[in-house]
Amino acid sequence: MAAKIDDPERHKSKMANRKAAQDAEVAGKTIEKGLLIVHTGKGKGKSTAAFGLLMRALGRGFKTGVVQFGKGAWDTGERHAIDRFPGQVSWHALGEGFTWETQDRTRDVAAAERAWAKAEELMADPELRLLILDELNIALRYDHLDINNVVATLTARRPDLHIVVTGRNAKPELIEAADLVTEMTPVKHHFDAGVKAQEGIEY
Amino acid sequence: MAAKIDDPERHKSKMANRKAAQDAEVAGKTIEKGLLIVHTGKGKGKSTAAFGLLMRALGRGFKTGVVQFGKGAWDTGERHAIDRFPGQVSWHALGEGFTWETQDRTRDVAAAERAWAKAEELMADPELRLLILDELNIALRYDHLDINNVVATLTARRPDLHIVVTGRNAKPELIEAADLVTEMTPVKHHFDAGVKAQEGIEY
Repeated sequence: MAAKIDDPERHKSKMANRKAAQDAEVAGKTIEKGLLIVHTGKGKGKSTAAFGLLMRALGRGFKTGVVQFGKGAWDTGERHAIDRFPGQVSWHALGEGFTWETQDRTRDVAAAERAWAKAEELMADPELRLLILDELNIALRYDHLDINNVVATLTARRPDLHIVVTGRNAKPELIEAADLVTEMTPVKHHFDAGVKAQEGIEY
Repeated sequence: MAAKIDDPERHKSKMANRKAAQDAEVAGKTIEKGLLIVHTGKGKGKSTAAFGLLMRALGRGFKTGVVQFGKGAWDTGERHAIDRFPGQVSWHALGEGFTWETQDRTRDVAAAERAWAKAEELMADPELRLLILDELNIALRYDHLDINNVVATLTARRPDLHIVVTGRNAKPELIEAADLVTEMTPVKHHFDAGVKAQEGIEY
Protein backbone atom coordinates (compact mmCIF):
# COMPACT_ATOMS: atom_id res chain seq x y z
CA MET A 1 0.00 0.00 0.00
CA ALA A 2 2.85 2.40 0.86
CA ALA A 3 4.29 2.02 -2.62
CA LYS A 4 0.94 2.85 -4.15
CA ILE A 5 0.53 5.98 -1.99
CA ASP A 6 3.95 7.25 -3.06
CA ASP A 7 3.18 6.61 -6.73
CA PRO A 8 2.83 10.11 -8.28
CA GLU A 9 -0.01 9.13 -10.59
CA ARG A 10 -1.93 7.48 -7.80
CA HIS A 11 -1.31 10.49 -5.54
CA LYS A 12 -2.54 12.85 -8.24
CA SER A 13 -5.65 10.76 -8.76
CA LYS A 14 -6.28 10.64 -5.01
CA MET A 15 -5.94 14.43 -4.70
CA ALA A 16 -8.23 14.90 -7.69
CA ASN A 17 -10.82 12.70 -5.98
CA ARG A 18 -10.47 14.70 -2.79
CA LYS A 19 -10.85 17.92 -4.74
CA ALA A 20 -13.92 16.53 -6.52
CA ALA A 21 -15.44 15.50 -3.19
CA GLN A 22 -14.83 18.98 -1.78
CA ASP A 23 -16.30 20.61 -4.87
CA ALA A 24 -19.33 18.35 -4.63
CA GLU A 25 -19.79 19.34 -1.00
CA VAL A 26 -19.64 23.03 -1.88
CA ALA A 27 -21.98 22.44 -4.81
CA GLY A 28 -24.41 20.55 -2.60
CA LYS A 29 -24.69 23.49 -0.26
CA THR A 30 -25.39 26.07 -2.91
CA ILE A 31 -28.28 27.21 -5.05
CA GLU A 32 -27.85 29.64 -7.91
CA LYS A 33 -30.70 32.07 -8.24
CA GLY A 34 -31.55 35.66 -8.84
CA LEU A 35 -31.70 37.37 -5.48
CA LEU A 36 -34.31 39.70 -4.08
CA ILE A 37 -32.21 42.14 -2.06
CA VAL A 38 -33.56 44.82 0.26
CA HIS A 39 -31.59 47.78 1.64
CA THR A 40 -33.54 49.48 4.38
CA GLY A 41 -33.02 51.44 7.61
CA LYS A 42 -32.54 55.11 8.41
CA GLY A 43 -28.80 55.18 7.68
CA LYS A 44 -26.85 56.20 4.61
CA GLY A 45 -25.71 53.73 2.00
CA LYS A 46 -28.99 52.13 0.88
CA SER A 47 -29.01 53.64 -2.61
CA THR A 48 -25.21 53.91 -2.71
CA ALA A 49 -24.78 50.18 -2.10
CA ALA A 50 -27.44 49.51 -4.77
CA PHE A 51 -25.48 51.75 -7.11
CA GLY A 52 -22.33 49.77 -6.21
CA LEU A 53 -24.15 46.54 -7.12
CA LEU A 54 -25.24 48.14 -10.38
CA MET A 55 -21.69 49.16 -11.28
CA ARG A 56 -20.35 45.71 -10.38
CA ALA A 57 -22.98 44.13 -12.64
CA LEU A 58 -22.11 46.59 -15.41
CA GLY A 59 -18.45 45.63 -14.97
CA ARG A 60 -19.55 42.03 -15.56
CA GLY A 61 -21.25 43.10 -18.77
CA PHE A 62 -24.80 42.59 -17.52
CA LYS A 63 -27.78 44.41 -18.94
CA THR A 64 -29.48 46.27 -16.09
CA GLY A 65 -32.42 48.50 -15.26
CA VAL A 66 -33.07 51.25 -12.72
CA VAL A 67 -36.46 52.64 -11.75
CA GLN A 68 -36.46 55.54 -9.32
CA PHE A 69 -39.67 55.76 -7.30
CA GLY A 70 -38.33 58.72 -5.36
CA LYS A 71 -37.05 62.06 -6.48
CA GLY A 72 -33.51 61.37 -7.59
CA ALA A 73 -31.29 60.20 -4.77
CA TRP A 74 -29.01 59.50 -7.72
CA ASP A 75 -27.59 62.50 -9.46
CA THR A 76 -24.80 63.79 -11.64
CA GLY A 77 -22.03 61.54 -10.33
CA GLU A 78 -24.07 58.40 -10.92
CA ARG A 79 -25.23 59.56 -14.35
CA HIS A 80 -21.71 60.22 -15.54
CA ALA A 81 -20.49 56.88 -14.24
CA ILE A 82 -23.33 55.05 -16.00
CA ASP A 83 -22.58 56.92 -19.23
CA ARG A 84 -19.39 54.87 -19.43
CA PHE A 85 -21.49 51.74 -20.03
CA PRO A 86 -23.55 52.68 -23.07
CA GLY A 87 -26.50 50.42 -23.80
CA GLN A 88 -26.22 48.48 -20.54
CA VAL A 89 -28.57 50.53 -18.32
CA SER A 90 -32.25 51.23 -18.89
CA TRP A 91 -32.78 54.14 -16.49
CA HIS A 92 -36.15 55.60 -15.51
CA ALA A 93 -36.49 58.46 -13.04
CA LEU A 94 -40.24 58.33 -12.48
CA GLY A 95 -40.61 59.59 -8.93
CA GLU A 96 -42.35 62.92 -8.52
CA GLY A 97 -41.43 63.47 -4.90
CA PHE A 98 -43.58 62.34 -2.03
CA THR A 99 -46.61 63.47 -0.13
CA TRP A 100 -44.80 66.09 1.94
CA GLU A 101 -43.63 67.72 -1.30
CA THR A 102 -46.56 67.28 -3.69
CA GLN A 103 -49.34 67.54 -1.07
CA ASP A 104 -51.36 65.56 -3.55
CA ARG A 105 -52.00 61.88 -2.90
CA THR A 106 -53.68 61.22 -6.24
CA ARG A 107 -50.62 62.49 -8.01
CA ASP A 108 -48.32 60.41 -5.78
CA VAL A 109 -50.30 57.25 -6.49
CA ALA A 110 -50.28 57.94 -10.22
CA ALA A 111 -46.48 58.45 -10.18
CA ALA A 112 -45.93 55.25 -8.20
CA GLU A 113 -48.17 53.30 -10.59
CA ARG A 114 -46.27 54.63 -13.61
CA ALA A 115 -42.96 53.65 -12.03
CA TRP A 116 -44.26 50.20 -11.11
CA ALA A 117 -45.56 49.65 -14.64
CA LYS A 118 -42.06 50.42 -15.90
CA ALA A 119 -40.58 47.99 -13.35
CA GLU A 120 -42.92 45.24 -14.60
CA GLU A 121 -41.97 46.01 -18.20
CA LEU A 122 -38.27 45.72 -17.37
CA MET A 123 -38.83 42.46 -15.46
CA ALA A 124 -40.31 41.04 -18.67
CA ASP A 125 -37.08 41.73 -20.60
CA PRO A 126 -35.35 38.32 -20.76
CA GLU A 127 -31.91 39.94 -21.18
CA LEU A 128 -32.10 41.95 -17.97
CA ARG A 129 -29.94 40.54 -15.16
CA LEU A 130 -30.27 43.20 -12.46
CA LEU A 131 -33.10 45.61 -11.67
CA ILE A 132 -32.84 48.36 -9.05
CA LEU A 133 -36.11 49.68 -7.63
CA ASP A 134 -34.83 52.73 -5.81
CA GLU A 135 -37.06 54.03 -2.99
CA LEU A 136 -39.83 51.54 -3.79
CA ASN A 137 -40.17 51.06 -0.01
CA ILE A 138 -41.43 54.63 0.36
CA ALA A 139 -44.19 54.09 -2.19
CA LEU A 140 -45.14 50.89 -0.36
CA ARG A 141 -45.04 52.53 3.04
CA TYR A 142 -47.60 55.12 2.02
CA ASP A 143 -49.69 52.46 0.26
CA HIS A 144 -49.29 54.12 -3.10
CA LEU A 145 -48.92 50.56 -4.36
CA ASP A 146 -50.49 47.36 -3.08
CA ILE A 147 -47.87 45.43 -1.11
CA ASN A 148 -49.36 42.02 -1.89
CA ASN A 149 -49.39 42.67 -5.61
CA VAL A 150 -45.81 44.00 -5.55
CA VAL A 151 -44.49 41.07 -3.51
CA ALA A 152 -46.29 38.54 -5.71
CA THR A 153 -44.78 40.08 -8.84
CA LEU A 154 -41.27 40.28 -7.36
CA THR A 155 -41.49 36.69 -6.15
CA ALA A 156 -42.57 35.54 -9.62
CA ARG A 157 -39.45 37.09 -11.22
CA ARG A 158 -37.35 35.07 -13.64
CA PRO A 159 -34.93 32.79 -11.75
CA ASP A 160 -31.88 34.60 -13.15
CA LEU A 161 -33.00 38.16 -12.40
CA HIS A 162 -31.57 39.98 -9.38
CA ILE A 163 -33.74 42.74 -7.90
CA VAL A 164 -32.63 45.34 -5.38
CA VAL A 165 -35.25 47.35 -3.47
CA THR A 166 -34.17 50.37 -1.43
CA GLY A 167 -35.79 52.75 1.03
CA ARG A 168 -36.61 53.12 4.70
CA ASN A 169 -39.28 51.14 6.47
CA ALA A 170 -39.34 48.04 4.31
CA LYS A 171 -42.63 46.26 4.92
CA PRO A 172 -42.57 42.87 6.70
CA GLU A 173 -44.16 41.20 3.65
CA LEU A 174 -41.22 42.31 1.50
CA ILE A 175 -38.63 41.24 4.08
CA GLU A 176 -40.34 37.86 4.27
CA ALA A 177 -40.07 37.44 0.48
CA ALA A 178 -36.48 38.70 0.22
CA ASP A 179 -33.30 36.61 0.07
CA LEU A 180 -30.99 39.24 1.52
CA VAL A 181 -32.01 42.14 3.75
CA THR A 182 -29.59 44.67 5.20
CA GLU A 183 -30.51 47.46 7.53
CA MET A 184 -28.37 50.57 7.30
CA THR A 185 -28.34 52.18 10.74
CA PRO A 186 -26.99 55.68 11.35
CA VAL A 187 -24.38 55.73 14.09
CA LYS A 188 -23.22 59.27 13.45
CA HIS A 189 -24.02 61.85 10.77
CA HIS A 190 -22.09 64.93 9.73
CA PHE A 191 -25.29 66.85 8.89
CA ASP A 192 -25.85 66.97 12.64
CA ALA A 193 -22.53 68.82 12.92
CA GLY A 194 -23.57 71.37 10.27
CA VAL A 195 -21.56 69.85 7.46
CA LYS A 196 -23.25 70.15 4.07
CA ALA A 197 -23.87 67.54 1.37
CA GLN A 198 -20.66 66.99 -0.57
CA GLU A 199 -20.28 66.80 -4.34
CA GLY A 200 -19.01 63.40 -5.41
CA ILE A 201 -19.96 61.90 -2.07
CA GLU A 202 -23.65 62.54 -1.61
CA TYR A 203 -24.55 63.48 -5.18
CA MET B 1 -45.27 102.58 -0.73
CA ALA B 2 -47.85 100.44 -2.61
CA ALA B 3 -46.65 101.83 -5.94
CA LYS B 4 -43.13 100.88 -5.07
CA ILE B 5 -44.11 97.31 -4.11
CA ASP B 6 -45.86 96.78 -7.44
CA ASP B 7 -42.89 98.13 -9.36
CA PRO B 8 -41.43 95.13 -11.19
CA GLU B 9 -37.84 96.20 -10.67
CA ARG B 10 -38.39 96.73 -6.99
CA HIS B 11 -40.17 93.37 -6.69
CA LYS B 12 -37.29 91.67 -8.45
CA SER B 13 -34.79 93.31 -6.15
CA LYS B 14 -36.84 92.35 -3.09
CA MET B 15 -37.08 88.72 -4.20
CA ALA B 16 -33.35 88.70 -4.92
CA ASN B 17 -32.72 89.99 -1.39
CA ARG B 18 -34.98 87.29 0.03
CA LYS B 19 -33.17 84.64 -2.01
CA ALA B 20 -29.81 85.98 -0.83
CA ALA B 21 -30.98 85.88 2.79
CA GLN B 22 -32.15 82.30 2.35
CA ASP B 23 -28.89 81.34 0.70
CA ALA B 24 -26.95 82.98 3.53
CA GLU B 25 -28.97 80.99 6.05
CA VAL B 26 -28.23 77.72 4.24
CA ALA B 27 -24.57 78.73 3.92
CA GLY B 28 -24.38 79.59 7.61
CA LYS B 29 -25.54 76.12 8.58
CA THR B 30 -23.08 74.27 6.41
CA ILE B 31 -19.42 73.42 6.41
CA GLU B 32 -17.64 72.02 3.39
CA LYS B 33 -15.02 69.49 4.29
CA GLY B 34 -13.61 66.18 3.34
CA LEU B 35 -15.51 63.53 5.26
CA LEU B 36 -14.20 60.62 7.25
CA ILE B 37 -16.80 57.94 6.57
CA VAL B 38 -16.99 54.55 8.28
CA HIS B 39 -19.04 51.56 7.09
CA THR B 40 -19.14 48.92 9.77
CA GLY B 41 -21.39 46.15 11.11
CA LYS B 42 -21.87 42.50 10.27
CA GLY B 43 -24.18 43.06 7.32
CA LYS B 44 -23.56 43.22 3.59
CA GLY B 45 -22.98 46.47 1.77
CA LYS B 46 -20.00 47.96 3.59
CA SER B 47 -17.55 47.55 0.70
CA THR B 48 -20.30 47.75 -1.90
CA ALA B 49 -21.44 51.16 -0.65
CA ALA B 50 -17.78 52.29 -0.59
CA PHE B 51 -17.50 51.08 -4.16
CA GLY B 52 -20.66 53.04 -4.99
CA LEU B 53 -19.08 56.17 -3.50
CA LEU B 54 -15.96 55.49 -5.55
CA MET B 55 -17.95 55.21 -8.78
CA ARG B 56 -19.91 58.37 -8.00
CA ALA B 57 -16.64 60.24 -7.42
CA LEU B 58 -15.24 58.82 -10.66
CA GLY B 59 -18.37 60.01 -12.43
CA ARG B 60 -17.57 63.47 -11.06
CA GLY B 61 -14.08 63.23 -12.53
CA PHE B 62 -12.30 62.93 -9.19
CA LYS B 63 -8.93 61.30 -8.81
CA THR B 64 -9.28 58.49 -6.26
CA GLY B 65 -7.35 55.81 -4.41
CA VAL B 66 -8.21 52.37 -3.04
CA VAL B 67 -6.12 50.38 -0.57
CA GLN B 68 -7.36 46.91 0.28
CA PHE B 69 -6.24 45.74 3.70
CA GLY B 70 -8.14 42.50 3.34
CA LYS B 71 -8.02 39.81 0.73
CA GLY B 72 -10.04 41.17 -2.14
CA ALA B 73 -13.67 41.73 -1.26
CA TRP B 74 -13.56 43.50 -4.62
CA ASP B 75 -13.15 41.35 -7.64
CA THR B 76 -13.68 41.09 -11.36
CA GLY B 77 -16.88 43.14 -11.57
CA GLU B 78 -15.31 46.06 -9.73
CA ARG B 79 -12.09 45.85 -11.73
CA HIS B 80 -13.90 45.97 -15.04
CA ALA B 81 -16.03 48.91 -13.93
CA ILE B 82 -12.96 50.84 -12.78
CA ASP B 83 -11.22 50.10 -16.09
CA ARG B 84 -13.73 52.46 -17.68
CA PHE B 85 -12.11 55.38 -15.82
CA PRO B 86 -8.48 55.16 -16.90
CA GLY B 87 -6.03 57.19 -14.83
CA GLN B 88 -8.59 58.07 -12.14
CA VAL B 89 -8.02 55.22 -9.67
CA SER B 90 -4.82 54.30 -7.88
CA TRP B 91 -5.65 50.78 -6.71
CA HIS B 92 -3.58 48.73 -4.29
CA ALA B 93 -4.59 45.24 -3.19
CA LEU B 94 -2.16 44.78 -0.32
CA GLY B 95 -4.04 42.48 2.03
CA GLU B 96 -2.60 39.02 2.48
CA GLY B 97 -5.58 37.54 4.22
CA PHE B 98 -5.98 37.52 7.98
CA THR B 99 -4.79 35.53 10.97
CA TRP B 100 -7.19 32.64 10.47
CA GLU B 101 -5.79 32.21 6.96
CA THR B 102 -2.09 32.98 7.30
CA GLN B 103 -1.67 31.62 10.88
CA ASP B 104 1.26 34.01 11.03
CA ARG B 105 0.89 37.22 12.98
CA THR B 106 4.27 38.67 11.94
CA ARG B 107 3.25 38.35 8.32
CA ASP B 108 -0.18 39.91 9.02
CA VAL B 109 1.41 42.90 10.73
CA ALA B 110 3.91 43.36 7.89
CA ALA B 111 1.08 43.28 5.31
CA ALA B 112 -0.99 45.80 7.29
CA GLU B 113 2.01 48.10 7.63
CA ARG B 114 2.70 47.94 3.91
CA ALA B 115 -0.92 48.77 3.16
CA TRP B 116 -0.95 51.62 5.67
CA ALA B 117 2.27 53.08 4.20
CA LYS B 118 0.52 53.11 0.82
CA ALA B 119 -2.50 54.81 2.36
CA GLU B 120 -0.25 57.54 3.82
CA GLU B 121 1.45 57.97 0.46
CA LEU B 122 -1.92 58.41 -1.29
CA MET B 123 -3.11 60.87 1.38
CA ALA B 124 -0.08 63.01 0.52
CA ASP B 125 -1.18 63.30 -3.12
CA PRO B 126 -2.76 66.77 -3.36
CA GLU B 127 -4.88 65.75 -6.36
CA LEU B 128 -6.58 62.84 -4.58
CA ARG B 129 -10.20 63.59 -3.61
CA LEU B 130 -11.39 60.23 -2.27
CA LEU B 131 -9.50 57.41 -0.61
CA ILE B 132 -11.08 54.05 0.25
CA LEU B 133 -9.38 52.01 2.98
CA ASP B 134 -11.18 48.72 2.51
CA GLU B 135 -11.18 46.40 5.55
CA LEU B 136 -8.87 48.68 7.51
CA ASN B 137 -11.12 47.97 10.52
CA ILE B 138 -10.00 44.34 10.54
CA ALA B 139 -6.32 45.30 10.72
CA LEU B 140 -7.17 47.68 13.57
CA ARG B 141 -9.28 45.13 15.40
CA TYR B 142 -6.39 42.68 15.59
CA ASP B 143 -3.97 45.50 16.49
CA HIS B 144 -1.91 44.97 13.38
CA LEU B 145 -1.77 48.76 13.31
CA ASP B 146 -1.79 51.23 16.17
CA ILE B 147 -5.27 52.79 16.43
CA ASN B 148 -4.02 56.08 17.86
CA ASN B 149 -1.51 56.56 15.08
CA VAL B 150 -4.08 55.69 12.42
CA VAL B 151 -6.76 58.00 13.86
CA ALA B 152 -4.25 60.87 14.23
CA THR B 153 -3.19 60.50 10.60
CA LEU B 154 -6.77 60.25 9.30
CA THR B 155 -7.80 63.28 11.36
CA ALA B 156 -4.87 65.28 9.96
CA ARG B 157 -5.99 64.63 6.37
CA ARG B 158 -6.25 67.52 3.90
CA PRO B 159 -9.55 69.38 4.32
CA ASP B 160 -10.71 68.43 0.82
CA LEU B 161 -9.94 64.70 1.03
CA HIS B 162 -12.78 62.24 1.68
CA ILE B 163 -11.79 58.94 3.29
CA VAL B 164 -13.97 55.83 3.58
CA VAL B 165 -13.01 53.08 6.01
CA THR B 166 -14.80 49.73 5.85
CA GLY B 167 -14.89 46.56 7.92
CA ARG B 168 -16.63 45.03 10.90
CA ASN B 169 -15.98 46.07 14.47
CA ALA B 170 -14.89 49.66 13.92
CA LYS B 171 -13.01 50.79 17.02
CA PRO B 172 -14.59 53.47 19.24
CA GLU B 173 -11.62 55.78 18.63
CA LEU B 174 -12.30 55.70 14.88
CA ILE B 175 -16.05 56.23 15.33
CA GLU B 176 -15.28 59.20 17.57
CA ALA B 177 -13.06 60.75 14.88
CA ALA B 178 -15.46 60.06 11.98
CA ASP B 179 -18.00 62.43 10.43
CA LEU B 180 -20.37 59.76 9.16
CA VAL B 181 -20.72 56.24 10.52
CA THR B 182 -23.18 53.68 9.21
CA GLU B 183 -23.70 50.23 10.62
CA MET B 184 -24.80 47.60 8.15
CA THR B 185 -26.88 45.06 10.07
CA PRO B 186 -27.88 41.73 8.57
CA VAL B 187 -31.62 41.15 8.77
CA LYS B 188 -31.67 38.11 6.50
CA HIS B 189 -29.04 36.39 4.38
CA HIS B 190 -29.47 33.96 1.50
CA PHE B 191 -26.29 32.05 2.43
CA ASP B 192 -28.30 30.75 5.39
CA ALA B 193 -30.75 29.29 2.88
CA GLY B 194 -27.95 27.54 0.95
CA VAL B 195 -27.82 30.05 -1.90
CA LYS B 196 -24.32 30.59 -3.26
CA ALA B 197 -22.40 33.79 -3.96
CA GLN B 198 -23.62 35.26 -7.24
CA GLU B 199 -21.51 36.59 -10.08
CA GLY B 200 -22.14 40.27 -10.65
CA ILE B 201 -23.77 40.60 -7.24
CA GLU B 202 -21.21 39.47 -4.72
CA TYR B 203 -18.12 39.53 -6.92
